[in-house]
Parts: sequence; structure tokens; C-alpha cells
Amino acid sequence: MQVRVARETACYNQTMSLVVVGSVAYDGVETPHGKVDRMLGGAATYIALAAGYFAPVGIVAVVGDDFAAEDAGLLASKGIGLEGLERVPGKTFFWEGRYSPDMNDRETLRTDLNVFAGFQPKLPESYRAAPYLLLGNIHPALQRGVRAQMNRLRLAGGDTMNYWIRDYRAELLETVRDWDFLLINDSEARMLSGEHNLRLAAARIMDMGPRTLVVKRGEYGAILFAGGAHFIAPGYLLDEVFDPTGAGDSFAGGFIGYLAQRGAAASGVTVEDLRRAVIYGSVMGSFCCEKFGVDRFRTLTLEEVEERYQEFKACTDF
Amino acid sequence: MQVRVARETACYNQTMSLVVVGSVAYDGVETPHGKVDRMLGGAATYIALAAGYFAPVGIVAVVGDDFAAEDAGLLASKGIGLEGLERVPGKTFFWEGRYSPDMNDRETLRTDLNVFAGFQPKLPESYRAAPYLLLGNIHPALQRGVRAQMNRLRLAGGDTMNYWIRDYRAELLETVRDWDFLLINDSEARMLSGEHNLRLAAARIMDMGPRTLVVKRGEYGAILFAGGAHFIAPGYLLDEVFDPTGAGDSFAGGFIGYLAQRGAAASGVTVEDLRRAVIYGSVMGSFCCEKFGVDRFRTLTLEEVEERYQEFKACTDF
Repeated sequence: MQVRVARETACYNQTMSLVVVGSVAYDGVETPHGKVDRMLGGAATYIALAAGYFAPVGIVAVVGDDFAAEDAGLLASKGIGLEGLERVPGKTFFWEGRYSPDMNDRETLRTDLNVFAGFQPKLPESYRAAPYLLLGNIHPALQRGVRAQMNRLRLAGGDTMNYWIRDYRAELLETVRDWDFLLINDSEARMLSGEHNLRLAAARIMDMGPRTLVVKRGEYGAILFAGGAHFIAPGYLLDEVFDPTGAGDSFAGGFIGYLAQRGAAASGVTVEDLRRAVIYGSVMGSFCCEKFGVDRFRTLTLEEVEERYQEFKACTDF
Repeated sequence: MQVRVARETACYNQTMSLVVVGSVAYDGVETPHGKVDRMLGGAATYIALAAGYFAPVGIVAVVGDDFAAEDAGLLASKGIGLEGLERVPGKTFFWEGRYSPDMNDRETLRTDLNVFAGFQPKLPESYRAAPYLLLGNIHPALQRGVRAQMNRLRLAGGDTMNYWIRDYRAELLETVRDWDFLLINDSEARMLSGEHNLRLAAARIMDMGPRTLVVKRGEYGAILFAGGAHFIAPGYLLDEVFDPTGAGDSFAGGFIGYLAQRGAAASGVTVEDLRRAVIYGSVMGSFCCEKFGVDRFRTLTLEEVEERYQEFKACTDF
């Protein structure tokens, strides 16, 4: 069965559906395929770019006065709302990293929080009634604060990372308690739950609040736990992984974007929609890896998104 | 769609369909769940036990005069042909290993080849006309010698490992050139091909001869390359991995067993049958991990095999 879901992203002026909070940054990245000293990056950037293929998105983030007009222009050209993109004096968050030859590991060479250190997300009035919320990986207290500013949520959730799990556990638990879904990678799921076995880890995490859990496994895909069952999605087998930076965030964008496009509500989201959302997440994550940084999204079309969704079907059917 | 394929394994007397060559051994294994000093093991043992659920199997292997009657009895009780199980003076091959706490790595503590050092596989006359052959992981020259003794093969292939790839490359290439299928794990596929990317690695390996390639990825499942396309099978999400020893060989047994049961021929095997064979391989590998050594096969029923196959369907469908 073919399910057509994606939509034109440019030049629309629809009511905002999805609010995305997180970093908008500059990245320096080195992979076996090359090196880029400075390029647009950040979790909110990737999430919004991927989600924008499915639903109208607005960003909440902070950048410095060095943030380039062309980078804002790229986001705007994709129809991403920038009213919540705060500009303050100083420099934009900068991250630099280098991938191992097989790209399964990366080393952080530099993290300059810059203006991000003082980030206090403030939602524009026009964002507050949006039904969908994706909280990128920031301080759990900030994530909680954003959620509190929304007044008509149908579905909310987000991402976190080892740093918050280890050093801000109590804050994090208080935050995720109210989430409908949590996206987390496998090692972090183990860390958060204290269980190595993913089935047991998932059960423990869902006891913390989220009724839907997506465990991301990098090149091996993802596992969805929801409705008392699980769904295993494979990773797309790329001919060449150019740069994995942003793949997890692009996954998150595809996942929540599809659910927003479907009009899913926490009270009645179907397992079928959740499964397809995981596949669209995998689709967007796989495209992200095909070029450096956000470059693949500059040219990616809806037709390519749909085609890859069908490829996922073809390579998993038996 | 439900596909019923497995069959009763005990107490039948059918024409042999599948010949399995490899080690029959004793293993000492330590996992986080416990330690067993000495138990039945070996590649041919696991392959035959798993394949026996699908088709009549005969083993070709060598054991010492210490090989216990109860271990031969277990194999015989499962209907496995032992005419090719040679007994010679000396001790049976012994392997001892210890798994890491997360069971993703294992350390070999001891390898005593014993009577296996002089293994020269001789096929009983009754084996030679069998249509299916699974060559477990032994010296490639011996694998080639066994294949040459078969005279009515429909489908033949096998497994190999890093040791042969590194130190006996020319022999190995000469051997796999004539195989219909190769089963190999991901790190060995990379080593054999010299390519990190699995899609490119697969293309190179298939240029070496086999038209069907299965890349095993441990807990992450397997990828089938055949007929110009690929199929990604997930690993089964176990509640508890008790002992992974033999899982890869049990996979091989389920794979070839199902194909033998279907009557597949190299010239006309369908991609659908190959995909299902990979799932049955995954099913058998997953059961293997549920208890120490071969213990799960002592009680495993056909109904459980079919039930798990359906579980694979349920957790991958979207």
C-alpha cells in the first residue's frame, strides 16, 4: 500500500503545526570524505528541515550576530517559521568534531556554547497554540519550560543525551514524565534505565512516563515501543555515508513531521501511524547522511522522500 | 500470510536431503548468566540441530573416543544422520570462551583441536546424492573436497571466518567461487572484500562467485543480497540473551533447512524463498541464545518455530 504524505515545503503560509526547540549552530566537521570548517548545523535546524517536508514548522532557538543571512534564508526558503529564532549579541553556538574512519565513532574537538549558554526559550504568541512539539536535546528544565508555554498540545516529546541523564537525572525524570514520546539512542536508553537488554530498558523507561519510545540504533535503524508491542525498523543501506552529523535529529524531524501531518493526537495515535512515522524518520535520517551537513536538504524533493519510503517497504517485506 | 514449513524431526526415516560438514565439539562457556565447563557444541552440531526442524540432515564430522553416548543420542533423537560422524582414538575438539558483560564480545580462552586437527571429511555413500550441502567453517580446501564428493547438488554454500580470509585467501577464493551462497558476518564481509560499506562489500563478494550472500550482523539481524536487490532482516529482540554460542550456526541451519524443505534449486530459487529462509535462520538463531549451548533445541517445538516466524512478521510490518 502506498501512503502519500509529504507536502510541498516552500512558499506556503499555513498555520503553524509543529514547534521545534533546540540549537541552531555552526559546525566544523571532518569525515573520511573531507572537512568543512564551518557550516550550518544544530539539532533544531536538522529537525525543522526534515519535519518541514510534512508539516508547517516554527523554530525556537538563539543565534549570535554572526548568523549569516544566507543560512536564515535557507530555513525561510523551506517555509520554516523563524519568528522564534532569537538574535542576540555574541557568537552562535559552535561545535567541531571528527569522525572515525568507519564513522561509527566521533570525537568532539571543540564546543563553544557562546550565546547558547544563556538560552531561555521564549515562545512567540503565534507558536503557543501549535498542536505538536519536538523538544530537541537541551537542558531538561528548559524543555519543561517550553512545554509549559504551549496551550493546545496534541502530542509532545523530545530527545535527550548522556550528559543530562548522568548529571541532571532528577530534572530529566521530572521533564519526561509529561512527554507523550521519547526519542533516545540505544546507549542512552541503557544508561537511563540501568538495563542492558533493550526490551527491559524500554519497559523501565516507559514506566517513567512516555507511552511511546523510539530507541535509535544508528546505522542499524530504530525500535519503536508502543501499545504493548514493538516494531523494528532497519537502517537504510546507503551506498556511501558522507557525513552522519544530524542524522538522529533528521530522524526526529521525519518522525514528528509525519505524525503532525497525520493529525495524530496523544490520546488516539495509532500504532500504524507510529510505525510509518519511524520509517519516515529513517528516510530523513538516511538522506541527511548523503552530503555534508544540511546540504542534502537543499535539493531533496518530496518525490525522493516517497521513493525511499517505498524502498524501505521493498527491502523489508517477506 | 502464514507459511507452514517446519516438520516433525524425531523418528523419521526419509531420504537425506541436507549434508552438514563442520565441527562437533565440546565447549566450555562463561556468560554473565553462568558457566558450563563442558557441553556439546561445534558448528555442525548447531547447524544440524536447527536444520533438522525443516529437512532430513546428515552430519559429516569427527569426534574422539571421549564423545558421550548421550550426546550422540541427542542428535539421533532429533533424526540427524550420524553415519558420517567418524570416531577416532583421541579427544574431541574442545573450545573454551568467555563473553563480555554485554555479550557483544568474547574471548577465546582455549582451543584444543585434538582429533579435529586430522579431519579429512569422508562422505558415506548414502550422503553423496543429497541435493543440499552446508559447509561449516573449516579449512577451505576441506570444504572444496567435500563438495567434490557430492554428485547431485541443487544448492551448496557455507560459512567461513577471519582466520581463513587472512591466511588462506587464495584457497578460500578458489572454494567460494563454486558456491551458490555464502553466509558471513559483517566484519568478515568487510575483511574479505576490503570495503567498509556493506553494499559495496556485498557487490565485491558476489563478484567472487556466490549469487546469494547473507551478511550476519549478530543482534542486529542479517542482510540478504540476491537477485539484484537486498533484504534487511532484524534481529529478534530477546528478553534475555543467555548464551550466544552457536547462534550464527543455528542461523545457517534454519536458512539452508528451509530452502531444502522448499526444494529450492540454485537455478531457480526465488527471492521470496530466500527472504523467508533468512527469517527462519533468524528464528533459529534467536532460540539458540535462550539457553546454554544446545539446550534450547532439546525442548524446542515446531509450533514455537512457527510462532516466532509470525512474531517477526508482526514486528516488521508497516
